Amino acid sequence: MSALPLSGVRVIDLTRILSGPFCSMILADLGADVIKIEAPGGDHVRKQGEIRRGLSWYFAGFNRNKKSVELNLRSAEGVQVLERLLADADILTENFRPGVLGEMGLTEARLKEINPKLIVVSVNGYGSTGPYADRPAFDFIAQAMSGFMATNGTSETGPLRSAPPITDLVAGLYAALGAVAALRGRENGGPAQRVEASMMMSMMSMLAYLSSNALATGEDPVPSGNNHPIASPYGLFRASDGDIAVAPSTEVIVRKFLRELGLEQLLSDPRFESNAVRLQHRAELNALINEALAHGTQDEWIARLNKAGVPSGRVQSLTEALADPQVADQEMVLTEQTPHHGEVRMTGFPIKFSETPLALRHPAPELGGNGRDVLRAAGYDEAEIEALIAQGVLGAGSPQTA
Amino acid sequence: MSALPLSGVRVIDLTRILSGPFCSMILADLGADVIKIEAPGGDHVRKQGEIRRGLSWYFAGFNRNKKSVELNLRSAEGVQVLERLLADADILTENFRPGVLGEMGLTEARLKEINPKLIVVSVNGYGSTGPYADRPAFDFIAQAMSGFMATNGTSETGPLRSAPPITDLVAGLYAALGAVAALRGRENGGPAQRVEASMMMSMMSMLAYLSSNALATGEDPVPSGNNHPIASPYGLFRASDGDIAVAPSTEVIVRKFLRELGLEQLLSDPRFESNAVRLQHRAELNALINEALAHGTQDEWIARLNKAGVPSGRVQSLTEALADPQVADQEMVLTEQTPHHGEVRMTGFPIKFSETPLALRHPAPELGGNGRDVLRAAGYDEAEIEALIAQGVLGAGSPQTA
Repeated sequence: MSALPLSGVRVIDLTRILSGPFCSMILADLGADVIKIEAPGGDHVRKQGEIRRGLSWYFAGFNRNKKSVELNLRSAEGVQVLERLLADADILTENFRPGVLGEMGLTEARLKEINPKLIVVSVNGYGSTGPYADRPAFDFIAQAMSGFMATNGTSETGPLRSAPPITDLVAGLYAALGAVAALRGRENGGPAQRVEASMMMSMMSMLAYLSSNALATGEDPVPSGNNHPIASPYGLFRASDGDIAVAPSTEVIVRKFLRELGLEQLLSDPRFESNAVRLQHRAELNALINEALAHGTQDEWIARLNKAGVPSGRVQSLTEALADPQVADQEMVLTEQTPHHGEVRMTGFPIKFSETPLALRHPAPELGGNGRDVLRAAGYDEAEIEALIAQGVLGAGSPQTA
Repeated sequence: MSALPLSGVRVIDLTRILSGPFCSMILADLGADVIKIEAPGGDHVRKQGEIRRGLSWYFAGFNRNKKSVELNLRSAEGVQVLERLLADADILTENFRPGVLGEMGLTEARLKEINPKLIVVSVNGYGSTGPYADRPAFDFIAQAMSGFMATNGTSETGPLRSAPPITDLVAGLYAALGAVAALRGRENGGPAQRVEASMMMSMMSMLAYLSSNALATGEDPVPSGNNHPIASPYGLFRASDGDIAVAPSTEVIVRKFLRELGLEQLLSDPRFESNAVRLQHRAELNALINEALAHGTQDEWIARLNKAGVPSGRVQSLTEALADPQVADQEMVLTEQTPHHGEVRMTGFPIKFSETPLALRHPAPELGGNGRDVLRAAGYDEAEIEALIAQGVLGAGSPQTA
């Protein structure tokens, strides 16, 4: 197997909780050597979500393929260690509130002094300038501020948060992309530079035609729930044993859908002959469709419709999705044996590379588990390392068992 | 200004509609030279969403910074032109159903023959192997299959689609990241390779602790709407003139929140002294909080709470979000003068680069507007170009005005 895409890239990672660690995990998955610097006590996520034999599966799923150094950055000695690690790094990742890095002594000027080739990647709530720059960030608030929540939901529910912390993840993903792009630029003669992605702005870029239509008309979209605002038939329909989702995207596919149901003649009915009139008679059309669908099961209809070119599928619960045969084929649930906490499972790698497939190279690190090794590699001798541990600057790194 | 991160990179783009064009737009925004190959008649999105003076603002927002060549790939001559363009490209992007590229004659072996350095980037619904590989892709179905819909919504609504076509966008974003990473790998001695991201698997990677908890327990999350399943207080509260979203993420921040409201004493009340008991008395606590919040406006409370370190904000409608002063500061709404269609607005660049800021270098192309230029640059002479136009292989490229 060839080297991974980011093989040889060194990342010093100051991020914690979610958006930043997602960014740095993507870099680690792509092959970078990511050293997670944790404050004494470690990333809070180590204690969150379901814990099994002393391991948070949530932490495990966001910190695989990284190393951990537990370092007290509130001490001058801790910052010195960090600076020595940064001298040899390609990328620094951080998701502090804007300005905190500078307060730590790591101003832009100082970082340039330490390592003029360093790319600094920041994930934050709203961006590092502007009226909200100093506000603390949180996914729920970014969902609310971005307009996403107002488009999610129905006229009955009103604005609705999405359960997954989607703004954290989208911002982390953009930041990872920015990091790799900046690296590619630098390796081709471009500058080392700061790269930033914020939760609110990242989410605003994901509203697609909703935002282009709102910009064109000045009007807000009406929350439409599972009905497509401008397409019929579309949505959830009832087979004999449960719902199926059907989304015919063009007039040609609508015809295929109705043909499979034995309802093609409806397209010459004045109530249903075009999308425009179908929108006005949506309930009648849906009733006729449900009547026809009642003659087969979910599986039968889904197989038949997809074969005919009509996008269709089940509404799966999360555990059903995780157990889906396609998910197994795509290796989207990974099982890992850890040295200290038994087995852990997590979602896999959504980017598939034909020649350099991504892999679990090592489990999420124990808190400070790589401290000695990383400092040794940075040129510290044993006495210096022991002194830093004795002073409480560096964590000694023993496994956290239950 | 320095060159953009992907300056000098040539992308031949066969994508249409949404997921693929989002991927190739990101590459174009990052500085790549992206040549969008459109089937005769053009990308369907040219006719979708709000149209102003002959321009779809939806199309404009997903195809900026690209060039367009209108090419009939159902003719042998069209495929020959494409092959000549591919010979000189770094990246091919496509979002056909798996197998369609091969049916066009562009098998993996043929592509290697044409250009052994070519990176092939595919976006599809479910991945190119596995039981669903041949199914047609559509966002609504991928939302349903991934388990995302089942986590979105409330116990009243049941599984709920998110209005933005989130799986298209997340898959496009992963594919762009994969493209840049593969390029970086190739430029550092790695192989040219195929890169793939699917809508369903991309979305499955965005479920964070919901999936890690489901994998640990075997149980599905309960749809919780705007209430955080395991945190209280959290959610929407009522100021004197409307709702505010508040998300105190730690016990320390809960204390700050209640202190600002003059309710700190509640933390010594046995009903509210810990998160665990607060979850059982959520309604009572929320009522007390709303009572206190009634003494100030949304703006007053949001400023005050954020200043105290408590994440808080408005639930903005989409038009409110687009008009937000922070969005203006972050240049997340761009206004562009087009040569043929007047002004168009679109959302901006969520990745901020300090030294090579991204920019609107040119508007979304007219259908086939760059055909002659691109073929000339590829070595075609005028007579050959005119012959291809006369044969209906190449579009002549005139502006599409209303």
